[in-house]
This record gives sequence, C-alpha cells and structure tokens, in this order.
Amino acid sequence: MRQDTGERKQAERLGVQPPKKYRHTFAVHSATRASCLSQDSAAPTSFTGFRNLGALVIIVSNLRLMIENFKKYGVLICIHCHDYRRQDVVYGSILYFLVPCHLFVAYIIELVAAQQAKGALARAKKMGVDSPANSSQRRQELRAFRTAWHLIAFAHGVNATLNLALATYVVYYHIHHPGIGTLCELHAVIVWLKTCSYAFTNRDLRHALLYPYASEVPELYSSCPYPQNITLRNLTYFWWAPTLIYQPVYPRTDKIRWPFVFKRCVEVVGLSIVIWIASAQYAAPLLKNSLGTISSLDLPSIAERLMKLSTISLFCWLAGFYALFQSFLNALAEVMRFGDREFYGEWWNSSGVRGYWSSWNKPVFQFMKRHIYSPMVGRGVPPLVAQIMTFLFSGVLHELLVGVPTHNILGVAFAGMMFQLPLIFLTDPLARMKGGNGKLLGNVIFWVSFCLVGQPLAALMYFFAWQAKYGSASKPQLWSTS
Amino acid sequence: MRQDTGERKQAERLGVQPPKKYRHTFAVHSATRASCLSQDSAAPTSFTGFRNLGALVIIVSNLRLMIENFKKYGVLICIHCHDYRRQDVVYGSILYFLVPCHLFVAYIIELVAAQQAKGALARAKKMGVDSPANSSQRRQELRAFRTAWHLIAFAHGVNATLNLALATYVVYYHIHHPGIGTLCELHAVIVWLKTCSYAFTNRDLRHALLYPYASEVPELYSSCPYPQNITLRNLTYFWWAPTLIYQPVYPRTDKIRWPFVFKRCVEVVGLSIVIWIASAQYAAPLLKNSLGTISSLDLPSIAERLMKLSTISLFCWLAGFYALFQSFLNALAEVMRFGDREFYGEWWNSSGVRGYWSSWNKPVFQFMKRHIYSPMVGRGVPPLVAQIMTFLFSGVLHELLVGVPTHNILGVAFAGMMFQLPLIFLTDPLARMKGGNGKLLGNVIFWVSFCLVGQPLAALMYFFAWQAKYGSASKPQLWSTS
Repeated sequence: MRQDTGERKQAERLGVQPPKKYRHTFAVHSATRASCLSQDSAAPTSFTGFRNLGALVIIVSNLRLMIENFKKYGVLICIHCHDYRRQDVVYGSILYFLVPCHLFVAYIIELVAAQQAKGALARAKKMGVDSPANSSQRRQELRAFRTAWHLIAFAHGVNATLNLALATYVVYYHIHHPGIGTLCELHAVIVWLKTCSYAFTNRDLRHALLYPYASEVPELYSSCPYPQNITLRNLTYFWWAPTLIYQPVYPRTDKIRWPFVFKRCVEVVGLSIVIWIASAQYAAPLLKNSLGTISSLDLPSIAERLMKLSTISLFCWLAGFYALFQSFLNALAEVMRFGDREFYGEWWNSSGVRGYWSSWNKPVFQFMKRHIYSPMVGRGVPPLVAQIMTFLFSGVLHELLVGVPTHNILGVAFAGMMFQLPLIFLTDPLARMKGGNGKLLGNVIFWVSFCLVGQPLAALMYFFAWQAKYGSASKPQLWSTS
Repeated sequence: MRQDTGERKQAERLGVQPPKKYRHTFAVHSATRASCLSQDSAAPTSFTGFRNLGALVIIVSNLRLMIENFKKYGVLICIHCHDYRRQDVVYGSILYFLVPCHLFVAYIIELVAAQQAKGALARAKKMGVDSPANSSQRRQELRAFRTAWHLIAFAHGVNATLNLALATYVVYYHIHHPGIGTLCELHAVIVWLKTCSYAFTNRDLRHALLYPYASEVPELYSSCPYPQNITLRNLTYFWWAPTLIYQPVYPRTDKIRWPFVFKRCVEVVGLSIVIWIASAQYAAPLLKNSLGTISSLDLPSIAERLMKLSTISLFCWLAGFYALFQSFLNALAEVMRFGDREFYGEWWNSSGVRGYWSSWNKPVFQFMKRHIYSPMVGRGVPPLVAQIMTFLFSGVLHELLVGVPTHNILGVAFAGMMFQLPLIFLTDPLARMKGGNGKLLGNVIFWVSFCLVGQPLAALMYFFAWQAKYGSASKPQLWSTS
C-alpha cells in the first residue's frame, strides 16, 4: 500500500496526466479453445440457423421459378378452359346416385341372413342342448343352414362385384374427362370396400352369435350385439363415417364443434384452389414441354424434366394429402361425431418404405390389414406371401383409379405398387439399424423413390399416353404460348 | 365352464367345421384419437422427415439447374482463360515481400521506445522516491520523456499509414486483375491491423511498466513482462499467428498434430477448386446474363436474376467461409501451436444482425472491440456513437477490399456496412424477445438481408461497374455461347 502511494507520488513528480481507465493490454486470447465446427469442440453445435436457411432457399428458388414461368407463359389459369362433355356429367351423376345403392342391397342381404341365423339359433335352442333329436330332421336342418350360409356369401359377392364392374365400365367407356372419371371411380372403390367390410364383419358377427365360444366379440360392440346392428340407421352411419371398416359401434365424440368444421372446410377450399392453380400454371406446361423429351428419349433432358416436375408434383401431393386426410376427413369425422381421427401417422418420418405404406393412408391400410392380410395369415399363409398378395390387390386398385379414368391401362400404377415390395425389403434392415444413419438413409430412399421419382414419372407416363391417344385435354390456345 | 362345453357339443351336433382363429370382427377403431397434425393431438409431432425432404429438394433443384446450365453453356471451366498481365504478378510479389517489412519497422520503433522507457525508469529509480531533486533537471527530464513518447506514436502512425497507402495505390493503379489485387489488398490490410495492434498494445504495456498501479497487466503476460517481449522471435510469431491482436503471450498447444494439418489443407484445396468451378461455370454466365436486365432496369427480371444469383453466391460464400475460417485458420493455428481456435461463433443461428457481425469473423471483431470500440467507450464516448464509428471504420475497410481491386470505388460495400446499423437496431428487439418466434424472425431477416440480397446485389454492382469500365475479364470465346 505504502509502495503504491510512493509510486503515485513519483508519477505526479514526472507530471504525467492521471492514467486512463481503458488499456489496450486486455488478453483476448486467454484460453485454449476449439472451433465449434471442429470434431474436438466440446459442446455440441446447433444448426437450426441452417434449417431456416434451407427453408428460405426453397422459397426463394421457387419464387424465382414462378417469375420465370410468368415471363414465359403469362397467366395460364382460366376457368372456361376445361371442356368436359355434357355426357360425362350425366353419367357421373347417375353413378353418384347408383353406387351407394349396392350398400343397401348388402343391407337387405344381411337382413335375410340375420333372420335365418336367428331361426337356426331358435331351433337349436328349441331342440335343447342335451335332448336326443330326430337325426333325419337334424340332417336336413343342417343342409338348409349351410346352403343359406353360402347363398348369402354368393349374394354379397355378386352385389359388390357388380358395383365395381359397372362403375369401371361406365367410367372407361362413357366418361371422357379424367377428373370426373377419377372422382366416380374413387367413389365406386370406396363404396365397394365398405360393402366388403360390411359383409365380412357381419358374417363373423353372425358366426360369433351361433358359436359364442369360438370367437369372442370385442367389448366395444356389447352396446349393440349382432342382430340389432342390422338397421338402416347403423348402415347409414357407416356409409358416411370416415372409415372403410365396418363396426357395429364406433368410439364417438359427445358434440360437434362447428367452428372446427368450418376451419377444416376453409382449408379444403383454399388448398383445392392452390392445387388447381399450381397444376394449371406450373404442372400443365411442364408436362406439355416434357412430351418432346420423352419421345426423343434424351435421358439427361428427361431427368431434368423429371426433377423440375418433382417439385411441383411434390407440392401438389403434400397439399392434397393435407386437404384430404387432415382437413376433409377431420371435418367429416367432426360432423359424424366419429371419435378415431387417426387417418394417418407421421409417415414423413418413416425410416423405410414399409413405414410409409402403413401410415400415410390409415383407412385403406386398416382395411387391408383387417380383411386381407390378417385373414390370410390367420389361415396359415406365410406373412411374406400375404404381404405380396396385399400389394397385388392394392396395385390393382391403384391401376383402377389411375388407368381407368385416363382410358390407358398401362399398368404403370400397378407396377409402381409392385416395385414397393423390393423397396420395402431393401429399407427394412435400414429401419431396424441402430443409430440414426440407417433411419436417415431409409427416409431419404423413401422420399426419393416415392415423391421425387415415382410420382412425377407416373404422372408423366399417363399424361404422355393421354396426349398420344387424345391430344391436349384442354383448349389449344392454352398451349399456343408454350 | 359347463355352459361352454354344452355349446361345443351343440356345435358338433350342428356339424359345423371347427371354428377358425381369425375373425373379421376385430375393433380397429377402439378409442377416440386425434390426428397428429391437429392442435388437439396430445403428443408433439416430429417433422425431421420434412427436414430431410427439404435438403433433398435443394439438392435436386440444384442438380436440375446444373443440367440446364450444362445444356445451355456446355463446360465453361478452362485454366487458360484468365488473362492476368505479367505486370500484375510482378507488382503482386513485390507487395507480398514489401508489406510485412512495416511490421519490422514497428518492431524497431518499439525497441527504441523500450530503451527510452527503461532509461526513464532507471533515472526515476536513481533519483529515489523521496530524495529532493534539482527542479530544472526534472523539468527537462520530463520534456524529453514526453517528446519521445509522442515521437514514438507519430513514427508508428507514419509507418502503418504508409503501409496501407502504398499497397492501395499500387493495387488501384498498377494491378489490373481483380483476383491478384484482392489478395494484395487483403494482405496489406491484415498486416496494417497487426501493426496497429502491436503499437497500441506495447504502448500500454510500456505505460503499465512506468505506472504499475495505474493499470494491471493480465496474469497471462507475466511469463514475458514488457521489455522482454520486444524480440524478433516474439514479433515473428505474432506475424504468422492466426490473430490480429498482439499479446506478448498466447495460450499454446503442446504439440502439432500433422494429420490434422494435412486434413485441413486438403479441405482448403478441395473447397477452393469447388468454388472456382462454381464461379466459372455458374456465377460468371449468370452475372453476364444479368447485365442486360440491370441496364434495362426491368425490376422483376432483376429480382429473378438476383434470386438465381443468391443461391450460387450463398454456396460460394459458405464454402469460402469454411475453407478460410475453419480449414485454413485451423491448419495455420495448428502449425503455430496457437491455442485459441475460436475464429468464429455459431453465427448461422444468430437471432439478429448484431449476433452475426460479432461472431462470423472473430479476429476482426476482436480487433474492433479491443482497439476501437472499447477504447472509445473507456474514454466516455456513448456506446451507440462508438458502434457507429466502428461500423464506419469497418465500412471503409470493406470498400478498400472490394472497391480498390475492382478499380471502382462505388461505395456499395461501404453503404452495405452502414446499412447494417439500422438492421441491427431493427433485429435487436427481436433477439431479446421471449419465445422462439422473435429469434426465428431475426434469423430469417439476417439470412435474407445478408446472403439472399446483400451479397449477390453487391457482386452484381461491382461486376456491372467492372464490365462497364473494362468489358469482360475473361477471353471473349468464353461468352460466345451464352
């Protein structure tokens, strides 16, 4: 302390101005530190900023493409450019009212079946469990029961098949416009699947009624046991319920939230408009331009077209998925007070192709599992074979939905579904791998195979075939600028 | 139990085949569930899959642009297309050897200063703290000391200024090629900053020697106190050390990991080649094509060009940042056994423009803070003013580095730096906001303002000015195809 004061005195004697606070001597490099991108950096580095950058780059590059597109084509969106024929609308509306009738035919068949079952049960009861019965009477009893059982199955088969066959015939031969055609075919397929589920489920409920010990009925159904569920009311609910699986009883919500319904409907309308604009302004000219490259089989050009197409098709696909599975089905479920809203899983995270197919479209997946895959496995078919059969069936459905309305049964959609099988067996080990890399690779393979290659390629194929068969689907002046 | 066996007996009497396991009655919709994209879904939904998709989309869309580019221009990369003049190389190498000399001039000045300080100290000691001394001797002593002190400062000023002025003059008037010019100017600026830091730091170390109670020297320096650090060895280390801040002592690593150095060097070479290809094949024709749109002032087209340019400039920028700040500086630091490798922070996550400027280029930021901002604030300048002064200085440096080698002192780089101030004051509140949204917005503003608009715009400006002044920098046949 004295030393200090001494020095201050000396400083005053030397007459230097009082020392300032700040000095340039501060030690900036005070410790050994690693760069945060080096492996030897201790703390984990976050890259959220780059995620934001990625999103921005996608937005900007697509904005750029929009400007480019506008400068090249101007505005292609016009409401009067779609020349659907009067005949299409007529046939479309006929189908719209005809198709659901098959559901009610199935109902009538079930009514008969129920009566017949109740009768059998009553007679069995009347016979009594342990009383010795007249054998000839028993034999004819049995014969009658069996024939009825098979007749019912046959009737259901005819009814369901007739529904699908008729709709498909009409769409393929009498509805030119692919849009209207797709709607009709989709409607027919949905009702067909519902009819099948209705028939299968009721058959087994009937069986459970006759042989309670053989198969127990889920607790959920106890509020409406078998014969009581064969009512018009119950069927009508199933008809409109957002599911393809028939259950006598569904989990229900206790009230309808109309604001929720309204929001969902707004989403549906908004997204539909966006998709329409996207396809008219971006996809259509792109597809048109691609025709040349396909016919010329110039591979790099085809790849280039595919890549450009993939972005817009991906966009439409995602928007469409959201509009249909999130907005529309949730609105419908809300109105129907349908409790189980799990119409899809987190398919975008799926670490393999199998994960995708089992989670993107739950209603269809559940139908396939309950009425095709499980029954086969339950009857001793090896799971692998059962899977292949399921995908065969699914492939046929896809071809129906794409090939029939475009009047070109190319089998591309079918082949696409079949191609999923090797992909599944390829990505399954990745999904099972320890650590994130396998899952990441699986996820990437899924995105590439499905959204970046599969879809645009299929769209290109069917559009190409359509053009080859009919020429442009829209008025010529739409293309004059491209 | 008895009931059960009774029913089985009855079943056998009815003669129906033994019941199968699987039944179509399984209750798929067993509980009330929400869709995982709905707000009322309980578990948080993960979107990592979409992150992967985003990355894929960026890759694919750029692959597509590459194909497009190749089909349009073919291969533009050629090694002999750069026509630098012999004169450029000569002047460049002269500067390369001349510039560092100023560092050694500074060293000599410091030697003198150290001698003078030691003398003063010795005489002060000889005089003794409390002995009464001859007043006239004291006065002239004091005068001599003060003049010396100011002479030293003046000498340093002249030396440093001469360095920068000479280099700038030569680059602006005698080096045509912008690449070579930039390298020379950058080298000159770095050495200039190092000289300044050397002078400032030693002045205050000297002050601390004379008035120990006035300012304490960091503990780190104790291993090499003031006069001992004025050695050629110490200076040479500072000359090559990856920092702009002079410290007598730096934290050091105990050995050189040569494999580490090798890897970093490979990265530098690889990235340099990638950047060269990117600029020659993608940026160059793009810049060339943009000239028309700029002169025509067609805004949507300029926006379109800017957006297209932003992707490639962003890529070059990121690659360049990694090559220089991660690979090169780490390699250099490893060779110099320089401990503090914090050459940058996680600037990509910065939730505002301030965060970016204070973390992307730590060496310069540290210099600004230690030798410009803090001294001002320490002397009572309000922080805001000090910040503005710092950015003014930084703006001048940027203009020197861009404007001088391109022989167009447009002031765009300077204006760009000045424009950072309003951006900083705009994004500061966002960065301070609670919750992630403010930070996200700040981060987005940073990316847009800097990488997606600022850089490509500046590049376009200077390229445009260059073209206007000299025409193409490369051989004409390079452009014939565009």
